[in-house]
Amino acid sequence: MDILRISSTQNPRIKHLIALQQKAQLRRSEQRIVVEGARELQHCINAGFKVETVIYCPEIFDISTILNSSYELIEVTPQVYEKIAYRGSTEGVIAIVKPRQLSLNDIDLGDNPLIIVLEGVEKPGNIGAVLRSADAARATAVIVCDPLTDLYNPNLIRSSIGAIFTVPCVASSSDECIKFLKDNNINILTAQLQDSEPYYDTPMHGATAIVMGTEATGLTNAWRQVATAHIRIPMQGQLDSLNVSVSTAILLFEAVRQRLTRGA
Amino acid sequence: MDILRISSTQNPRIKHLIALQQKAQLRRSEQRIVVEGARELQHCINAGFKVETVIYCPEIFDISTILNSSYELIEVTPQVYEKIAYRGSTEGVIAIVKPRQLSLNDIDLGDNPLIIVLEGVEKPGNIGAVLRSADAARATAVIVCDPLTDLYNPNLIRSSIGAIFTVPCVASSSDECIKFLKDNNINILTAQLQDSEPYYDTPMHGATAIVMGTEATGLTNAWRQVATAHIRIPMQGQLDSLNVSVSTAILLFEAVRQRLTRGA
Repeated sequence: MDILRISSTQNPRIKHLIALQQKAQLRRSEQRIVVEGARELQHCINAGFKVETVIYCPEIFDISTILNSSYELIEVTPQVYEKIAYRGSTEGVIAIVKPRQLSLNDIDLGDNPLIIVLEGVEKPGNIGAVLRSADAARATAVIVCDPLTDLYNPNLIRSSIGAIFTVPCVASSSDECIKFLKDNNINILTAQLQDSEPYYDTPMHGATAIVMGTEATGLTNAWRQVATAHIRIPMQGQLDSLNVSVSTAILLFEAVRQRLTRGA
Repeated sequence: MDILRISSTQNPRIKHLIALQQKAQLRRSEQRIVVEGARELQHCINAGFKVETVIYCPEIFDISTILNSSYELIEVTPQVYEKIAYRGSTEGVIAIVKPRQLSLNDIDLGDNPLIIVLEGVEKPGNIGAVLRSADAARATAVIVCDPLTDLYNPNLIRSSIGAIFTVPCVASSSDECIKFLKDNNINILTAQLQDSEPYYDTPMHGATAIVMGTEATGLTNAWRQVATAHIRIPMQGQLDSLNVSVSTAILLFEAVRQRLTRGA
Protein backbone atom coordinates (compact mmCIF):
# COMPACT_ATOMS: atom_id res chain seq x y z
CA MET A 1 0.00 0.00 0.00
CA ASP A 2 1.31 3.43 -0.91
CA ILE A 3 1.86 5.74 2.00
CA LEU A 4 2.38 9.44 1.49
CA ARG A 5 4.95 10.89 3.90
CA ILE A 6 4.76 14.56 4.88
CA SER A 7 7.34 16.38 6.99
CA SER A 8 6.44 20.01 6.25
CA THR A 9 3.65 21.94 7.96
CA GLN A 10 3.43 24.00 4.76
CA ASN A 11 2.38 21.00 2.66
CA PRO A 12 -0.92 21.80 0.86
CA ARG A 13 -2.57 18.62 2.21
CA ILE A 14 -1.77 19.72 5.77
CA LYS A 15 -3.06 23.23 5.10
CA HIS A 16 -6.25 21.79 3.66
CA LEU A 17 -6.75 19.56 6.72
CA ILE A 18 -6.37 22.53 9.05
CA ALA A 19 -8.88 24.51 6.98
CA LEU A 20 -11.37 21.61 7.23
CA GLN A 21 -10.91 21.53 11.01
CA GLN A 22 -11.54 25.23 11.36
CA LYS A 23 -14.21 26.04 8.77
CA ALA A 24 -17.76 24.68 8.94
CA GLN A 25 -18.42 26.26 5.55
CA LEU A 26 -15.62 24.26 3.92
CA ARG A 27 -16.77 21.02 5.60
CA ARG A 28 -20.22 21.69 4.18
CA SER A 29 -19.14 22.55 0.65
CA GLU A 30 -16.73 19.61 0.42
CA GLN A 31 -18.96 17.20 2.36
CA ARG A 32 -16.03 16.08 4.49
CA ILE A 33 -15.51 16.01 8.25
CA VAL A 34 -12.46 15.60 10.46
CA VAL A 35 -12.30 12.93 13.16
CA GLU A 36 -9.46 13.11 15.70
CA GLY A 37 -8.54 10.46 18.22
CA ALA A 38 -8.17 6.68 18.24
CA ARG A 39 -11.40 5.95 20.09
CA GLU A 40 -13.50 8.35 18.03
CA LEU A 41 -12.12 6.97 14.78
CA GLN A 42 -12.76 3.39 15.85
CA HIS A 43 -16.44 4.17 16.57
CA CYS A 44 -16.65 5.97 13.23
CA ILE A 45 -15.25 2.94 11.39
CA ASN A 46 -17.45 0.49 13.35
CA ALA A 47 -20.52 2.52 12.39
CA GLY A 48 -19.68 2.10 8.73
CA PHE A 49 -18.77 5.68 7.90
CA LYS A 50 -16.61 6.03 4.79
CA VAL A 51 -13.09 6.94 5.90
CA GLU A 52 -11.14 8.51 3.06
CA THR A 53 -7.81 9.56 4.50
CA VAL A 54 -6.03 8.63 7.70
CA ILE A 55 -3.26 11.00 8.80
CA TYR A 56 -1.13 9.53 11.55
CA CYS A 57 2.15 9.89 13.33
CA PRO A 58 3.87 6.47 13.50
CA GLU A 59 5.82 7.51 16.61
CA ILE A 60 2.48 7.80 18.49
CA PHE A 61 -0.17 5.73 16.70
CA ASP A 62 -0.02 2.10 15.58
CA ILE A 63 -1.71 2.18 12.19
CA SER A 64 -1.99 -1.62 12.10
CA THR A 65 -4.87 -1.35 14.60
CA ILE A 66 -7.14 0.11 11.91
CA LEU A 67 -5.46 -0.97 8.70
CA ASN A 68 -7.78 -1.22 5.72
CA SER A 69 -6.82 -0.97 2.09
CA SER A 70 -9.65 1.43 1.32
CA TYR A 71 -8.09 4.38 3.18
CA GLU A 72 -5.51 6.72 1.82
CA LEU A 73 -2.68 6.81 4.39
CA ILE A 74 -0.57 9.84 5.19
CA GLU A 75 2.33 9.53 7.60
CA VAL A 76 3.45 12.73 9.28
CA THR A 77 6.32 13.65 11.56
CA PRO A 78 5.71 14.47 15.24
CA GLN A 79 6.28 18.16 14.40
CA VAL A 80 3.57 18.13 11.73
CA TYR A 81 1.23 16.15 13.97
CA GLU A 82 1.68 18.65 16.78
CA LYS A 83 0.55 21.36 14.38
CA ILE A 84 -2.65 19.61 13.25
CA ALA A 85 -3.71 18.00 16.54
CA TYR A 86 -6.31 19.83 18.58
CA ARG A 87 -5.52 17.94 21.78
CA GLY A 88 -1.78 17.96 21.69
CA SER A 89 0.03 14.91 20.48
CA THR A 90 -1.53 12.29 22.73
CA GLU A 91 -3.28 10.07 20.19
CA GLY A 92 -1.53 10.48 16.88
CA VAL A 93 -4.39 9.93 14.45
CA ILE A 94 -6.78 12.17 12.51
CA ALA A 95 -9.05 11.10 9.64
CA ILE A 96 -11.03 12.76 6.88
CA VAL A 97 -14.43 11.12 6.63
CA LYS A 98 -17.61 11.49 4.59
CA PRO A 99 -20.46 12.63 6.87
CA ARG A 100 -23.95 11.19 6.83
CA GLN A 101 -26.87 13.58 6.75
CA LEU A 102 -29.66 11.58 8.34
CA SER A 103 -33.23 12.80 8.04
CA LEU A 104 -36.10 12.08 10.41
CA ASN A 105 -37.33 9.24 8.21
CA ASP A 106 -33.96 7.50 8.49
CA ILE A 107 -34.54 6.90 12.21
CA ASP A 108 -35.30 3.26 13.00
CA LEU A 109 -37.93 3.72 15.71
CA GLY A 110 -37.94 0.07 16.81
CA ASP A 111 -40.52 -1.17 19.30
CA ASN A 112 -40.47 1.52 21.88
CA PRO A 113 -38.56 4.64 20.92
CA LEU A 114 -36.79 6.88 23.42
CA ILE A 115 -35.77 10.09 21.71
CA ILE A 116 -33.97 13.21 22.89
CA VAL A 117 -34.87 16.51 21.22
CA LEU A 118 -32.62 19.52 21.76
CA GLU A 119 -34.09 22.85 20.70
CA GLY A 120 -31.75 25.76 20.16
CA VAL A 121 -28.91 24.24 22.18
CA GLU A 122 -25.86 26.05 20.91
CA LYS A 123 -22.69 24.79 22.52
CA PRO A 124 -21.15 21.88 20.62
CA GLY A 125 -19.75 20.56 23.92
CA ASN A 126 -23.25 20.28 25.39
CA ILE A 127 -24.63 18.45 22.36
CA GLY A 128 -21.64 16.09 22.44
CA ALA A 129 -22.19 15.40 26.15
CA VAL A 130 -25.88 14.62 25.49
CA LEU A 131 -24.88 12.18 22.75
CA ARG A 132 -22.52 10.43 25.16
CA SER A 133 -25.38 9.93 27.66
CA ALA A 134 -27.72 8.90 24.82
CA ASP A 135 -25.26 6.17 23.87
CA ALA A 136 -25.10 4.90 27.46
CA ALA A 137 -28.92 4.82 27.68
CA ARG A 138 -29.18 3.33 24.20
CA ALA A 139 -31.55 6.08 23.14
CA THR A 140 -33.15 5.68 19.72
CA ALA A 141 -31.96 9.03 18.37
CA VAL A 142 -31.00 12.59 19.23
CA ILE A 143 -32.79 15.23 17.15
CA VAL A 144 -31.26 18.70 17.13
CA CYS A 145 -33.94 21.23 16.17
CA ASP A 146 -33.09 24.51 14.48
CA PRO A 147 -29.39 23.76 14.98
CA LEU A 148 -27.00 26.60 15.66
CA THR A 149 -23.92 24.44 15.15
CA ASP A 150 -23.06 21.81 12.58
CA LEU A 151 -23.35 18.28 13.93
CA TYR A 152 -19.81 17.42 12.87
CA ASN A 153 -18.20 20.37 14.62
CA PRO A 154 -14.84 19.08 15.94
CA ASN A 155 -15.73 20.12 19.51
CA LEU A 156 -18.98 18.19 19.28
CA ILE A 157 -17.25 15.04 18.00
CA ARG A 158 -14.63 15.29 20.72
CA SER A 159 -17.01 15.91 23.62
CA SER A 160 -19.18 13.02 22.39
CA ILE A 161 -16.05 10.80 22.49
CA GLY A 162 -17.44 9.17 19.36
CA ALA A 163 -21.14 8.90 20.30
CA ILE A 164 -21.95 11.08 17.28
CA PHE A 165 -21.17 7.89 15.31
CA THR A 166 -22.99 5.39 17.56
CA VAL A 167 -26.25 7.31 18.13
CA PRO A 168 -28.42 8.38 15.18
CA CYS A 169 -28.31 12.17 15.22
CA VAL A 170 -30.60 14.24 12.99
CA ALA A 171 -30.91 17.96 12.35
CA SER A 172 -34.45 19.16 11.76
CA SER A 173 -36.74 22.15 12.08
CA SER A 174 -38.98 22.16 15.16
CA ASP A 175 -42.10 22.07 12.96
CA GLU A 176 -40.98 18.98 11.06
CA CYS A 177 -39.87 17.29 14.26
CA ILE A 178 -43.22 17.91 15.99
CA LYS A 179 -45.06 16.49 12.98
CA PHE A 180 -42.75 13.46 12.93
CA LEU A 181 -43.31 12.72 16.63
CA LYS A 182 -47.07 13.14 16.35
CA ASP A 183 -47.32 11.03 13.20
CA ASN A 184 -45.49 8.27 15.06
CA ASN A 185 -47.56 8.54 18.27
CA ILE A 186 -44.56 9.42 20.38
CA ASN A 187 -45.33 11.17 23.68
CA ILE A 188 -43.75 14.60 23.88
CA LEU A 189 -42.39 15.49 27.34
CA THR A 190 -41.15 19.06 27.53
CA ALA A 191 -38.72 20.08 30.27
CA GLN A 192 -39.87 23.37 31.76
CA LEU A 193 -39.98 24.83 35.25
CA GLN A 194 -43.41 26.45 35.05
CA ASP A 195 -46.68 24.58 34.86
CA SER A 196 -45.04 21.18 35.15
CA GLU A 197 -44.92 18.03 37.27
CA PRO A 198 -41.87 16.31 38.78
CA TYR A 199 -40.31 14.16 36.08
CA TYR A 200 -40.46 10.98 38.15
CA ASP A 201 -44.26 11.22 38.36
CA THR A 202 -44.53 11.09 34.57
CA PRO A 203 -44.73 7.74 32.75
CA MET A 204 -41.89 7.23 30.30
CA HIS A 205 -42.47 3.53 29.63
CA GLY A 206 -44.02 4.09 26.24
CA ALA A 207 -42.78 5.79 23.09
CA THR A 208 -41.21 8.95 24.51
CA ALA A 209 -39.46 12.08 23.32
CA ILE A 210 -37.76 14.20 26.00
CA VAL A 211 -37.53 17.78 24.73
CA MET A 212 -34.93 20.16 26.16
CA GLY A 213 -34.45 23.88 25.53
CA THR A 214 -31.52 26.10 26.37
CA GLU A 215 -30.42 26.86 29.91
CA ALA A 216 -31.01 30.56 29.31
CA THR A 217 -34.39 30.74 27.59
CA GLY A 218 -35.99 27.29 27.78
CA LEU A 219 -38.32 25.93 25.12
CA THR A 220 -40.39 27.89 22.60
CA ASN A 221 -44.17 27.93 22.82
CA ALA A 222 -44.45 25.68 19.78
CA TRP A 223 -43.07 22.84 21.86
CA ARG A 224 -44.89 23.68 25.10
CA GLN A 225 -48.22 23.68 23.29
CA VAL A 226 -47.87 20.25 21.69
CA ALA A 227 -46.55 18.56 24.82
CA THR A 228 -48.16 15.39 26.18
CA ALA A 229 -46.79 16.44 29.57
CA HIS A 230 -44.63 19.21 31.01
CA ILE A 231 -41.95 17.87 33.30
CA ARG A 232 -39.43 19.45 35.65
CA ILE A 233 -36.50 18.47 37.79
CA PRO A 234 -37.24 19.81 41.30
CA MET A 235 -34.64 22.53 41.92
CA GLN A 236 -33.84 22.82 45.59
CA GLY A 237 -30.70 24.91 45.56
CA GLN A 238 -29.67 28.52 45.35
CA LEU A 239 -28.40 28.62 41.77
CA ASP A 240 -31.64 27.46 40.15
CA SER A 241 -29.88 25.96 37.19
CA LEU A 242 -28.43 22.69 35.91
CA ASN A 243 -26.25 22.21 32.88
CA VAL A 244 -28.44 21.10 29.96
CA SER A 245 -26.41 17.92 29.43
CA VAL A 246 -26.82 17.03 33.11
CA SER A 247 -30.60 17.72 33.06
CA THR A 248 -30.97 15.62 29.94
CA ALA A 249 -29.10 12.71 31.51
CA ILE A 250 -31.25 12.80 34.66
CA LEU A 251 -34.46 12.64 32.58
CA LEU A 252 -33.09 10.06 30.16
CA PHE A 253 -32.00 7.69 32.91
CA GLU A 254 -35.36 8.04 34.64
CA ALA A 255 -36.86 6.71 31.41
CA VAL A 256 -34.30 3.88 31.47
CA ARG A 257 -35.14 3.16 35.12
CA GLN A 258 -38.86 3.01 34.39
CA ARG A 259 -38.32 0.74 31.40
CA LEU A 260 -35.92 -1.65 33.15
CA THR A 261 -38.05 -1.91 36.30
CA ARG A 262 -41.36 -2.05 34.47
CA GLY A 263 -42.11 -5.62 35.42
CA ALA A 264 -40.96 -5.13 39.02
CA MET B 1 -15.31 55.88 49.78
CA ASP B 2 -11.86 55.94 48.21
CA ILE B 3 -11.66 54.24 44.84
CA LEU B 4 -8.32 53.40 43.31
CA ARG B 5 -8.28 53.92 39.54
CA ILE B 6 -5.90 51.90 37.38
CA SER B 7 -5.40 52.39 33.66
CA SER B 8 -2.11 50.54 33.11
CA THR B 9 -1.80 46.79 32.67
CA GLN B 10 1.70 47.15 34.14
CA ASN B 11 0.37 48.35 37.50
CA PRO B 12 1.74 46.10 40.30
CA ARG B 13 -1.76 45.43 41.65
CA ILE B 14 -2.83 44.16 38.23
CA LYS B 15 0.26 42.00 37.92
CA HIS B 16 -0.39 40.57 41.37
CA LEU B 17 -4.01 39.75 40.47
CA ILE B 18 -2.90 37.91 37.33
CA ALA B 19 -0.35 35.94 39.35
CA LEU B 20 -3.08 34.95 41.85
CA GLN B 21 -5.28 33.76 38.98
CA GLN B 22 -2.53 31.64 37.49
CA LYS B 23 -0.64 30.24 40.47
CA ALA B 24 -2.19 27.81 42.96
CA GLN B 25 0.98 28.08 45.06
CA LEU B 26 0.56 31.84 45.45
CA ARG B 27 -3.14 31.47 46.31
CA ARG B 28 -2.11 29.00 49.00
CA SER B 29 0.72 31.03 50.48
CA GLU B 30 -1.31 34.26 50.54
CA GLN B 31 -4.58 32.57 51.49
CA ARG B 32 -6.44 34.50 48.82
CA ILE B 33 -8.62 33.36 45.90
CA VAL B 34 -9.94 35.08 42.79
CA VAL B 35 -13.65 35.13 41.97
CA GLU B 36 -14.70 36.31 38.50
CA GLY B 37 -18.22 37.05 37.35
CA ALA B 38 -21.25 38.84 38.75
CA ARG B 39 -23.23 35.71 39.60
CA GLU B 40 -20.29 33.91 41.21
CA LEU B 41 -19.39 36.96 43.30
CA GLN B 42 -22.99 37.39 44.45
CA HIS B 43 -23.11 33.79 45.71
CA CYS B 44 -19.75 34.30 47.38
CA ILE B 45 -21.02 37.42 49.19
CA ASN B 46 -24.33 35.78 50.13
CA ALA B 47 -22.43 32.87 51.66
CA GLY B 48 -20.58 35.26 53.93
CA PHE B 49 -17.11 34.95 52.48
CA LYS B 50 -14.82 37.86 53.27
CA VAL B 51 -14.38 39.90 50.09
CA GLU B 52 -11.28 42.07 50.30
CA THR B 53 -10.93 43.77 46.94
CA VAL B 54 -13.38 44.25 44.08
CA ILE B 55 -11.83 45.11 40.72
CA TYR B 56 -14.41 46.28 38.23
CA CYS B 57 -14.83 48.07 34.95
CA PRO B 58 -17.53 50.77 35.33
CA GLU B 59 -18.30 50.64 31.60
CA ILE B 60 -19.47 47.02 32.05
CA PHE B 61 -20.37 46.41 35.70
CA ASP B 62 -22.64 48.45 37.97
CA ILE B 63 -20.77 48.45 41.28
CA SER B 64 -23.83 49.77 43.15
CA THR B 65 -25.33 46.26 42.91
CA ILE B 66 -22.81 44.96 45.44
CA LEU B 67 -21.64 48.09 47.22
CA ASN B 68 -20.37 47.57 50.72
CA SER B 69 -17.97 49.78 52.60
CA SER B 70 -15.86 46.85 53.72
CA TYR B 71 -14.40 46.16 50.26
CA GLU B 72 -11.45 47.92 48.73
CA LEU B 73 -12.62 49.10 45.30
CA ILE B 74 -10.42 49.30 42.23
CA GLU B 75 -11.79 50.77 39.02
CA VAL B 76 -10.06 49.69 35.83
CA THR B 77 -10.34 50.75 32.21
CA PRO B 78 -11.86 48.37 29.62
CA GLN B 79 -8.32 47.72 28.30
CA VAL B 80 -7.07 46.65 31.72
CA TYR B 81 -10.20 44.58 32.32
CA GLU B 82 -9.75 42.77 29.01
CA LYS B 83 -6.28 41.79 30.19
CA ILE B 84 -7.36 40.34 33.54
CA ALA B 85 -10.66 38.73 32.53
CA TYR B 86 -10.61 35.04 31.83
CA ARG B 87 -13.91 35.08 29.96
CA GLY B 88 -13.51 38.17 27.87
CA SER B 89 -15.08 41.37 29.01
CA THR B 90 -18.66 40.19 29.43
CA GLU B 91 -19.17 40.68 33.15
CA GLY B 92 -16.76 43.34 34.30
CA VAL B 93 -16.07 42.24 37.88
CA ILE B 94 -13.35 40.22 39.63
CA ALA B 95 -12.79 39.99 43.38
CA ILE B 96 -10.04 38.88 45.72
CA VAL B 97 -11.54 36.87 48.55
CA LYS B 98 -10.37 34.99 51.62
CA PRO B 99 -11.03 31.26 51.15
CA ARG B 100 -12.52 29.00 53.79
CA GLN B 101 -10.81 25.72 54.48
CA LEU B 102 -13.62 23.58 55.84
CA SER B 103 -12.81 20.33 57.57
CA LEU B 104 -15.02 17.27 57.87
CA ASN B 105 -16.17 18.33 61.32
CA ASP B 106 -17.44 21.64 59.94
CA ILE B 107 -20.13 19.82 57.92
CA ASP B 108 -23.60 20.33 59.36
CA LEU B 109 -25.05 16.86 58.78
CA GLY B 110 -28.63 17.83 59.57
CA ASP B 111 -31.33 15.19 59.85
CA ASN B 112 -30.63 13.05 56.87
CA PRO B 113 -27.35 13.76 55.13
CA LEU B 114 -26.79 13.24 51.41
CA ILE B 115 -23.11 13.52 50.64
CA ILE B 116 -21.10 13.25 47.43
CA VAL B 117 -17.55 11.91 47.72
CA LEU B 118 -15.19 12.32 44.75
CA GLU B 119 -12.02 10.24 44.92
CA GLY B 120 -9.13 11.23 42.70
CA VAL B 121 -11.25 13.30 40.31
CA GLU B 122 -8.76 15.60 38.70
CA LYS B 123 -10.41 18.00 36.27
CA PRO B 124 -11.54 21.21 37.97
CA GLY B 125 -14.38 21.46 35.42
CA ASN B 126 -15.79 18.10 36.53
CA ILE B 127 -15.64 19.00 40.22
CA GLY B 128 -17.33 22.33 39.44
CA ALA B 129 -20.09 20.58 37.47
CA VAL B 130 -20.67 18.16 40.38
CA LEU B 131 -20.99 21.12 42.76
CA ARG B 132 -23.58 22.70 40.47
CA SER B 133 -25.69 19.51 40.58
CA ALA B 134 -25.11 19.22 44.34
CA ASP B 135 -26.55 22.71 44.77
CA ALA B 136 -29.64 21.81 42.71
CA ALA B 137 -30.18 18.64 44.78
CA ARG B 138 -29.42 20.51 48.00
CA ALA B 139 -26.81 17.94 48.92
CA THR B 140 -25.31 18.25 52.40
CA ALA B 141 -21.71 18.46 51.22
CA VAL B 142 -19.21 17.47 48.56
CA ILE B 143 -16.04 15.84 49.91
CA VAL B 144 -13.06 15.72 47.55
CA CYS B 145 -10.71 12.95 48.67
CA ASP B 146 -7.00 13.06 47.98
CA PRO B 147 -7.55 16.16 45.83
CA LEU B 148 -5.40 16.69 42.75
CA THR B 149 -6.56 20.26 42.27
CA ASP B 150 -7.13 23.09 44.69
CA LEU B 151 -10.80 23.67 45.44
CA TYR B 152 -10.56 27.34 44.53
CA ASN B 153 -9.02 26.76 41.11
CA PRO B 154 -10.50 29.46 38.82
CA ASN B 155 -11.81 26.81 36.39
CA LEU B 156 -13.55 25.01 39.24
CA ILE B 157 -15.20 28.21 40.50
CA ARG B 158 -16.33 29.09 36.99
CA SER B 159 -17.72 25.68 36.06
CA SER B 160 -19.56 25.58 39.40
CA ILE B 161 -21.13 28.97 38.48
CA GLY B 162 -20.77 29.80 42.16
CA ALA B 163 -21.89 26.50 43.74
CA ILE B 164 -18.45 26.26 45.39
CA PHE B 165 -19.84 28.98 47.66
CA THR B 166 -23.32 27.54 48.21
CA VAL B 167 -22.41 23.88 48.85
CA PRO B 168 -20.06 22.95 51.71
CA CYS B 169 -16.99 21.52 49.98
CA VAL B 170 -14.25 19.79 51.96
CA ALA B 171 -10.87 18.33 51.00
CA SER B 172 -9.89 15.22 52.95
CA SER B 173 -7.86 12.05 52.76
CA SER B 174 -9.85 8.92 51.88
CA ASP B 175 -8.95 7.36 55.25
CA GLU B 176 -10.26 10.30 57.23
CA CYS B 177 -13.38 10.50 55.10
CA ILE B 178 -14.17 6.81 55.57
CA LYS B 179 -13.76 7.16 59.33
CA PHE B 180 -16.00 10.26 59.32
CA LEU B 181 -18.78 8.51 57.38
CA LYS B 182 -18.64 5.41 59.57
CA ASP B 183 -18.55 7.41 62.80
CA ASN B 184 -21.71 9.19 61.64
CA ASN B 185 -23.52 6.04 60.48
CA ILE B 186 -23.73 7.23 56.89
CA ASN B 187 -24.29 4.51 54.29
CA ILE B 188 -21.46 4.33 51.78
CA LEU B 189 -22.61 3.60 48.21
CA THR B 190 -19.70 3.12 45.83
CA ALA B 191 -20.22 3.52 42.09
CA GLN B 192 -18.51 0.63 40.29
CA LEU B 193 -19.35 -1.52 37.30
CA GLN B 194 -18.23 -4.87 38.73
CA ASP B 195 -19.97 -6.71 41.54
CA SER B 196 -22.74 -4.13 41.85
CA GLU B 197 -26.49 -3.68 41.64
CA PRO B 198 -28.47 -1.16 39.58
CA TYR B 199 -28.52 2.11 41.48
CA TYR B 200 -32.31 2.38 41.48
CA ASP B 201 -32.60 -0.91 43.41
CA THR B 202 -30.54 0.54 46.27
CA PRO B 203 -32.24 2.48 49.08
CA MET B 204 -30.97 6.03 49.37
CA HIS B 205 -33.64 7.35 51.77
CA GLY B 206 -31.38 7.28 54.78
CA ALA B 207 -28.06 8.94 55.53
CA THR B 208 -26.17 8.36 52.30
CA ALA B 209 -22.78 9.06 50.78
CA ILE B 210 -22.44 8.44 47.03
CA VAL B 211 -18.78 7.75 46.25
CA MET B 212 -17.42 8.31 42.74
CA GLY B 213 -13.99 7.50 41.31
CA THR B 214 -12.40 8.67 38.10
CA GLU B 215 -13.71 7.76 34.66
CA ALA B 216 -10.41 6.07 33.84
CA THR B 217 -9.60 3.97 36.90
CA GLY B 218 -12.66 3.94 39.18
CA LEU B 219 -12.46 3.72 42.95
CA THR B 220 -9.62 2.34 45.04
CA ASN B 221 -10.06 -0.85 47.06
CA ALA B 222 -10.15 1.11 50.31
CA TRP B 223 -13.55 2.47 49.27
CA ARG B 224 -14.90 -0.71 47.70
CA GLN B 225 -14.17 -2.65 50.88
CA VAL B 226 -15.99 -0.32 53.25
CA ALA B 227 -19.06 0.08 51.03
CA THR B 228 -22.55 -0.54 52.38
CA ALA B 229 -23.54 -1.31 48.76
CA HIS B 230 -21.91 -1.25 45.34
CA ILE B 231 -24.07 0.48 42.77
CA ARG B 232 -23.89 0.89 39.01
CA ILE B 233 -25.64 2.76 36.25
CA PRO B 234 -26.62 0.11 33.67
CA MET B 235 -24.53 0.90 30.58
CA GLN B 236 -26.33 -0.15 27.43
CA GLY B 237 -24.32 1.60 24.75
CA GLN B 238 -21.15 1.09 22.79
CA LEU B 239 -18.92 3.62 24.51
CA ASP B 240 -19.23 2.15 28.00
CA SER B 241 -18.59 5.44 29.69
CA LEU B 242 -20.36 8.44 31.13
CA ASN B 243 -18.81 11.70 32.20
CA VAL B 244 -18.25 11.60 35.97
CA SER B 245 -20.32 14.75 36.53
CA VAL B 246 -23.21 13.19 34.57
CA SER B 247 -22.98 9.87 36.48
CA THR B 248 -22.91 11.74 39.77
CA ALA B 249 -26.01 13.75 38.85
CA ILE B 250 -27.95 10.61 37.85
CA LEU B 251 -27.18 8.95 41.21
CA LEU B 252 -27.76 12.12 43.21
CA PHE B 253 -31.17 12.77 41.68
CA GLU B 254 -32.19 9.16 42.24
CA ALA B 255 -31.56 9.85 45.94
CA VAL B 256 -33.65 13.03 45.63
CA ARG B 257 -36.43 11.08 43.89
CA GLN B 258 -36.47 8.42 46.61
CA ARG B 259 -36.53 11.05 49.34
CA LEU B 260 -39.25 13.20 47.76
CA THR B 261 -41.49 10.22 46.91
CA ARG B 262 -40.87 8.40 50.17
CA GLY B 263 -44.38 8.84 51.47
CA ALA B 264 -45.96 8.06 48.09
